[in-house]
Amino acid sequence: MAAGRVSLVGAGPGDPELWTVRALRRVEDADLVLYDALVDAEALRQVTHAQCFCVGKRAGRASVKQETINRLMVRAARQGKRVVRLKGGDPFVFGRGGEEMLALARAGIPFEVVPGVTTAVAAPEMAGIPVTHRGMASGFLVLTGQTGEGLNRALASVRPGSLTLVVMMGLASRDEIAGQLLDHGWHPDTRAAIVCGVSTREEWTWTGTLADLGAPAPPEGVAGVIVVGEVVSIREALAAGNARPVEADEVKYGRS
Amino acid sequence: MAAGRVSLVGAGPGDPELWTVRALRRVEDADLVLYDALVDAEALRQVTHAQCFCVGKRAGRASVKQETINRLMVRAARQGKRVVRLKGGDPFVFGRGGEEMLALARAGIPFEVVPGVTTAVAAPEMAGIPVTHRGMASGFLVLTGQTGEGLNRALASVRPGSLTLVVMMGLASRDEIAGQLLDHGWHPDTRAAIVCGVSTREEWTWTGTLADLGAPAPPEGVAGVIVVGEVVSIREALAAGNARPVEADEVKYGRS
Repeated sequence: MAAGRVSLVGAGPGDPELWTVRALRRVEDADLVLYDALVDAEALRQVTHAQCFCVGKRAGRASVKQETINRLMVRAARQGKRVVRLKGGDPFVFGRGGEEMLALARAGIPFEVVPGVTTAVAAPEMAGIPVTHRGMASGFLVLTGQTGEGLNRALASVRPGSLTLVVMMGLASRDEIAGQLLDHGWHPDTRAAIVCGVSTREEWTWTGTLADLGAPAPPEGVAGVIVVGEVVSIREALAAGNARPVEADEVKYGRS
Repeated sequence: MAAGRVSLVGAGPGDPELWTVRALRRVEDADLVLYDALVDAEALRQVTHAQCFCVGKRAGRASVKQETINRLMVRAARQGKRVVRLKGGDPFVFGRGGEEMLALARAGIPFEVVPGVTTAVAAPEMAGIPVTHRGMASGFLVLTGQTGEGLNRALASVRPGSLTLVVMMGLASRDEIAGQLLDHGWHPDTRAAIVCGVSTREEWTWTGTLADLGAPAPPEGVAGVIVVGEVVSIREALAAGNARPVEADEVKYGRS
C-alpha cells in the first residue's frame, strides 16, 4: 500500500484561477479533500475525483472542530490516501495551518505545505490598493479582527504612521477596531477601505476615512478585509481618473 | 488591430509550480514578457512564445530603470501587444507594482493585476515557520530591509511582542537590523531565522537568536527573508522531532 500523505494547500482569495499550479495538481491527484467554506466548492469538484468534505463554517452550521479535522487527516493518510487540506488564502495566515502541521508531525504523517495567494495582500490589490508604495507605506501589518486582548495589544503595538494596516475577519467588529485605532492616536481622516469577496461575483468595495469605518454596510456572509492607510488613496486616484483596473472578465484573453 | 493590454503578474517565490493558474495563462498567451531577475527564466521560456526580456538586476549589470520599463509597457500595449510584467513574489509587496499601475493608468492603457504568492509569507512557510500561530503571533509585520530613515522609523513603530516580523531584502543589512531591534527593546534571545532561495535549488535556512543574526553567512546572490519572532521555534520543534515538512520533490505525486 502506498504511503499516505497530507498537503496543506492555500486556495487563494476565491477565484480558482488564483490557485497555484501545484495546488491544482494536488487537488487533481487527491483521494480526499477537506476544504474550508471559503473555497469555491463547485470549481473544486470539477477538477478532482476525490471525496470532498466541507469542514468550514456554512450557513447555520458550525464548522467541524479542529481536533476532528486533525483526526480525519491522520486517519486517511494512515489508510494510504493522498489528502489535501484546502484552505482559503494561505494556510499560515490565520489559517491554523501551523497547528495542523504540528498535529501531522506528532502523528508521524508525511506532509507538505503549499503556499497560497494570501487574501491579506490580494484583496486590497485587486481593488487597486497596493499594501506597499514608495513614499507612502514602507511596510504592512496584518492582524485578525477577532476581538479580545490580542487584537487590542496588536493595535496598541504599532504607531500611527507609515505602515498599511490590514485587518482580516474584522468586518463584524469594524466599529470597535476604528475606535481602538482612534484611541491609539490614528488620525480620523486616515484613508480606510473595506474589500469583500474579492475575485468572486460578490466583490464589494468601500473607501472612506477611519472615522467613517463603521458607517458602510458590507454584504452579509461574505469575507472581507479592512485596509487602513494612505495607500487607499491610490484606488481613489485611479477611480477619479476613470482609470480603474480592468476586471478579470474583461481580460480573458482568447486561447484559440 | 486588437487593443493591447498589460497584466502585472506575481510569479511567487521561485518554483514555477507556485505560479497561479492565471499567471500561467497570461504568460502562455503573451506577446511580450518583461520579467525580473527573481523569475526562473528557463521555466518562463518553456511555456511561452512571447518575446522575453529580463529587466531586473543580473550579475554585474544594473536593472533597467523604472521609467524605461514603464515606457516599454506602454509602447508595446499601444502596438496592440499583450504584455505581461512578471515580478517575483507579489507585484504589490515591495514590487513597485503600484507605480507601474499608475503609469499605465495615466497613459490610458488597459491593465489588470494578478496577485502572486508573496515571498514574505511563503519563504518562512516552506521552511516550517507560520507567520501567525495561535497563542504565539496574532499578526505579522512585513518591512523592507533597504536601509535608511524609513526602515528605522518602521522598526521603531512596533513594540516588541506578539507580532512576527518579516524583513525582505534585508540580508545585506542584517547586522544593522538586529542592532536597531535590540536598541528598540527586543530581547536578544528572540528567535530569528534567515530563509533564502525558498522553493528553488538554492534553498538555505538558518535559525538562531536575534543577538546572533549577524553571524551566519547566507549564500551570495540569493534573495532571502529575515524572520524574527517566537514562531521560528515551530520549525525548530519540527526539526528536533525529526518531523520536518517533506520536501516538494518527495511529494511529486505521479499523474499517470
